Amino acid sequence: MVNSTGSTLSHLECTACRRTFDADVLHRLCEECGKVLYPRYDLANVRLRPSDLLTREPSMWRYREVLPIRDAEHIVSLGEGFTPLLAAPRLSERLGIADVRIKDEGQNPTGSFKARGMSAAVSRARELGAKSVAAPSAGNAGGALAAYAARAGLAAGVVMPEDCPRINQVEAVVSGADTWLVEGLIDDAGRLVRTTSEARGWFDVSTLKEPYRVEGKKTLGYELAEQLGWELPDVVIYPTGGGTGLVGMWKAFAEMTELGWIGEQRPRMVVVQAEGCAPIVRAHDQGERHAPRWEDATTDASGLRVPVAVGDYLILDAVRDSGGTAVSVSEDEMREATRELAASEGVYPAPEGVATFAALRRLRDTGAVTDTDRVVLFNTGAGQKYPDFVPATPEVVPADSPAWKTGL
Amino acid sequence: MVNSTGSTLSHLECTACRRTFDADVLHRLCEECGKVLYPRYDLANVRLRPSDLLTREPSMWRYREVLPIRDAEHIVSLGEGFTPLLAAPRLSERLGIADVRIKDEGQNPTGSFKARGMSAAVSRARELGAKSVAAPSAGNAGGALAAYAARAGLAAGVVMPEDCPRINQVEAVVSGADTWLVEGLIDDAGRLVRTTSEARGWFDVSTLKEPYRVEGKKTLGYELAEQLGWELPDVVIYPTGGGTGLVGMWKAFAEMTELGWIGEQRPRMVVVQAEGCAPIVRAHDQGERHAPRWEDATTDASGLRVPVAVGDYLILDAVRDSGGTAVSVSEDEMREATRELAASEGVYPAPEGVATFAALRRLRDTGAVTDTDRVVLFNTGAGQKYPDFVPATPEVVPADSPAWKTGL
Repeated sequence: MVNSTGSTLSHLECTACRRTFDADVLHRLCEECGKVLYPRYDLANVRLRPSDLLTREPSMWRYREVLPIRDAEHIVSLGEGFTPLLAAPRLSERLGIADVRIKDEGQNPTGSFKARGMSAAVSRARELGAKSVAAPSAGNAGGALAAYAARAGLAAGVVMPEDCPRINQVEAVVSGADTWLVEGLIDDAGRLVRTTSEARGWFDVSTLKEPYRVEGKKTLGYELAEQLGWELPDVVIYPTGGGTGLVGMWKAFAEMTELGWIGEQRPRMVVVQAEGCAPIVRAHDQGERHAPRWEDATTDASGLRVPVAVGDYLILDAVRDSGGTAVSVSEDEMREATRELAASEGVYPAPEGVATFAALRRLRDTGAVTDTDRVVLFNTGAGQKYPDFVPATPEVVPADSPAWKTGL
Repeated sequence: MVNSTGSTLSHLECTACRRTFDADVLHRLCEECGKVLYPRYDLANVRLRPSDLLTREPSMWRYREVLPIRDAEHIVSLGEGFTPLLAAPRLSERLGIADVRIKDEGQNPTGSFKARGMSAAVSRARELGAKSVAAPSAGNAGGALAAYAARAGLAAGVVMPEDCPRINQVEAVVSGADTWLVEGLIDDAGRLVRTTSEARGWFDVSTLKEPYRVEGKKTLGYELAEQLGWELPDVVIYPTGGGTGLVGMWKAFAEMTELGWIGEQRPRMVVVQAEGCAPIVRAHDQGERHAPRWEDATTDASGLRVPVAVGDYLILDAVRDSGGTAVSVSEDEMREATRELAASEGVYPAPEGVATFAALRRLRDTGAVTDTDRVVLFNTGAGQKYPDFVPATPEVVPADSPAWKTGL
């Protein structure tokens, strides 16, 4: 098999029972125990050194030796990743925190962090022979899947809650995905994708239910380290629906330590959810390792309206092992924080992204984050995709109004 | 004065009467003849070489020696520029053209190419002491100005046509700009910004009416050359409202030739406008050097609804000197091309952006573009900001429908 990327992918391993599987055929969950499979790499044979990265392309594929695609021709890319890690000096000062930065994932193709996972999963699905791909989506994943499938030349299916944001519906359809809406939440949509996959011949790329979306998301962790000079921050605050980015970063940190690129220090990993849908927060508070379904989930942060996460144990393990925590924030806190973040730092955040800033304020108040901490907030998408979250209508002033002359 | 950027900015020069002005005080148009001022550089003293760029940050500020900011502390950045230049193999094949690529400007901060000009103009306005900035906007410029002013800590004013896209209205307000709507078009809004500037203390950054937005936009030209290995394409197709990006690229090409980075070869520069607002196309067809106002301008491609351009002579000169042309496309062509581009290549274009693809089809039909041409299309913004342009509503299927089992 061609290995023009230098990928060191070696096998798949179950994150629960540790059974291993051949990475070069399509798998989804562990066929023994039904848990999440992780790709593993022959890290001892990675020839890439951090200094080699200096001249590489500014996308997540700069880390191709630790990504799962073997043939560079199979990489399905729209330029995703290597997004800016922006200083947030006004927020830092206002909250009395040494260093607050924002990883602005809204600058990805399709305007969200979902691009990373879909780029990896669609690339690998195509490499292993899939002809069509499908996924449920609570929001941005559907648009990203549609875009990457289109770029790959694969058919795509998307099933979404009927009340998910309209822009997400439109982008999936315009990008050519067969798209349906259902009354219900993302887990209902996920069940219907499973039901339909056989008849349609779909390969189901539901997050963490196949092994490669997490590989795209883990590049968030590689980038964080690279952009901070191979030192991790003290605190990572991550808006958690399915939690793939959080567990992906945790996996990346372990890989980088094994590669000798970073030491043993880890950020405190903080999960943020919405008060109206906080299964991981509840499980964390109760000391559980699994998070039962949150009934009657409701939040306008559509990406956080995820009542059950297949990777719950991976999320909760990372939070606990890192000395982190899990917090929920209210709709009002998110709405107020949107204007504050946009008008203070110039980053118009998605509702999910701004939840991290709302959470930071709480954590500062309780002392869980202190004045010496270096904190990274993940803005997972462009606020422009959510014009109804903080609606605003400017005043109409007639062109002949005398107010123009006096300065309005 | 600090010169930590290595900027070689030397003076301002009128593009019409050639009079020169001090670059280190705020200017707008030529105080002699009212035409556009261009910043000029001491290019003989630029120490930067193309190979030095390999290790620079992936933003437009990698070209800081030929940008107007002297103190790096004054750069107001959200990570704009160095956007991907994506291959479009399916479009190339379908149209029978050697190489078609898409410069995807939708991946900029605020989701459009307007980020470049505003990053440069706001940076320089702040460096020269402005406390607040304002501009009229037909669409994306207002959101970009608001974001960069917020990041700079400057007050901002935005005046927009009342029927401009709602997302543009929302992003300006949420990002903290004082925002008003007027009945009329962008030139009406521009007149009202001028009327109000004195009372509000605004520095008016209307495009090409101050010297620095074009400097941000010219980085499109530098990037094109760098991303193509210091060879320019044969054809550049650019959606033209105010035309700042087109004239900016033309300026960049001249600078790069003087720097010895590229030769004398130039792309054929093609202006695309909407049939409902095509002042530059009309002037080009009539052999004029100036383009009178287009009355009753109408198009849903809001960024093309610009009835008069202050830089009309600069645009028309570049088109003619390059052997290019100017074409207009219909609303139907843009709508159809949106789905085709998104579903073929995975890039969901803004209406203005897709106009370039619609134009390419026409140019191929007429023979103005041939099979051997290497063509670059500029997608100036993210289609996600225009969900009403090609509306789409997926079908709702009840969760208990038997259709799920049979594949819908």
